[in-house]
Amino acid sequence: MTIRLIGFGNSVCTIRVILCLKELGLSYKLTPHAGGYAALKDKDYLANEHPFGKVPVLYDDKFKITESRAICRYLAFKNQGKHNDTILIPNDIHEAGLTEQLISYGSSYYSPAIEKIVMQEIYEKDKGKTPDPVVINQGRKEIEAVLNVYDKILEGKEYLNGKFSLADLILCPITHYAHIAKHSDLWDKKPNVKKWWNRLKNRDAWKKTLEDAKNA
Amino acid sequence: MTIRLIGFGNSVCTIRVILCLKELGLSYKLTPHAGGYAALKDKDYLANEHPFGKVPVLYDDKFKITESRAICRYLAFKNQGKHNDTILIPNDIHEAGLTEQLISYGSSYYSPAIEKIVMQEIYEKDKGKTPDPVVINQGRKEIEAVLNVYDKILEGKEYLNGKFSLADLILCPITHYAHIAKHSDLWDKKPNVKKWWNRLKNRDAWKKTLEDAKNA
Repeated sequence: MTIRLIGFGNSVCTIRVILCLKELGLSYKLTPHAGGYAALKDKDYLANEHPFGKVPVLYDDKFKITESRAICRYLAFKNQGKHNDTILIPNDIHEAGLTEQLISYGSSYYSPAIEKIVMQEIYEKDKGKTPDPVVINQGRKEIEAVLNVYDKILEGKEYLNGKFSLADLILCPITHYAHIAKHSDLWDKKPNVKKWWNRLKNRDAWKKTLEDAKNA
Repeated sequence: MTIRLIGFGNSVCTIRVILCLKELGLSYKLTPHAGGYAALKDKDYLANEHPFGKVPVLYDDKFKITESRAICRYLAFKNQGKHNDTILIPNDIHEAGLTEQLISYGSSYYSPAIEKIVMQEIYEKDKGKTPDPVVINQGRKEIEAVLNVYDKILEGKEYLNGKFSLADLILCPITHYAHIAKHSDLWDKKPNVKKWWNRLKNRDAWKKTLEDAKNA
């Protein structure tokens, strides 16, 4: 099995898939798209790689799949438990349902709140723009409200669904960026959330992911 | 098995779950939350039903699960093929992966574009406000761009992934609302998209869903 990934080392969604590959013990080759983000809207890329002009795109031999969460589910269903003990989507139907519920909390509430400040502090700054303090302030309030809920969810648990799962994995890249953007105080204020992030960032797979992303 | 659903007959996410129940041949009881949408932010509801104050919430006997897409996946994995032939998530790993990819296209591109006009034309109007023509115009442009892609995806196919799947089901309620809001011309202009919506809205499960939603 040869896995080829089209993406960028600074893309949240690309890093998510790299982390998934590492957690499952899979090797891969990252091919950044020539021409960078702007070239994702080129006719050829839209026709052959991703119809909405996004990364990542994963090729598993000749099978192509796009969209980071879909790619992670595919990789998990195909490979989990084969190269190591990591199970990202539980086999039990109820536990799998609760993992999906938590993945949805991540997509619907956690990530959108953080994306606001990350867009301002990382991507807008990269373009030479000054971050908008009003947007950052609003984003911080939203993150705080979301983290209050997460702190309750994590009460007495190591990970969101008890055991480590895809629901935790998916949130690592955006949480990392919020910390790089110097908003770690929001996480540090919530004891369960703080311990959870500490656990996640110390996983071997995450450390290896950051190395790969840096060298991409 | 007794299935109880907390939600509202005019909520896109509630209607999505009702449609899933109907497609799988499952019966259920809908309990609208007393006090309406505003009461979803009450302390009791947040503590006991949904920590972010949303509908729907599904109880399968004593097992509780929230978030419409997660609920649909749970119901499919537990029940598909048991009461009829409908398979919402294919058993083949590659086909399941492609279904997840299409579900993600729905969440990331199709639904957000349509939500803009539906919020203005349905929900804002319900509150007595006048729809903002600038937002509607922008929304229509975005929908048109998305439907161009969907028309290509649907070329030579009856449904998004060939056979009917959760990827189609999830988009029914928001597409229905766009048509109620009198923007059906956008769908009618794209031949494959037009035929696809015609197939979806003529499914028995959808007709029964609309009756249930109306009587809720």
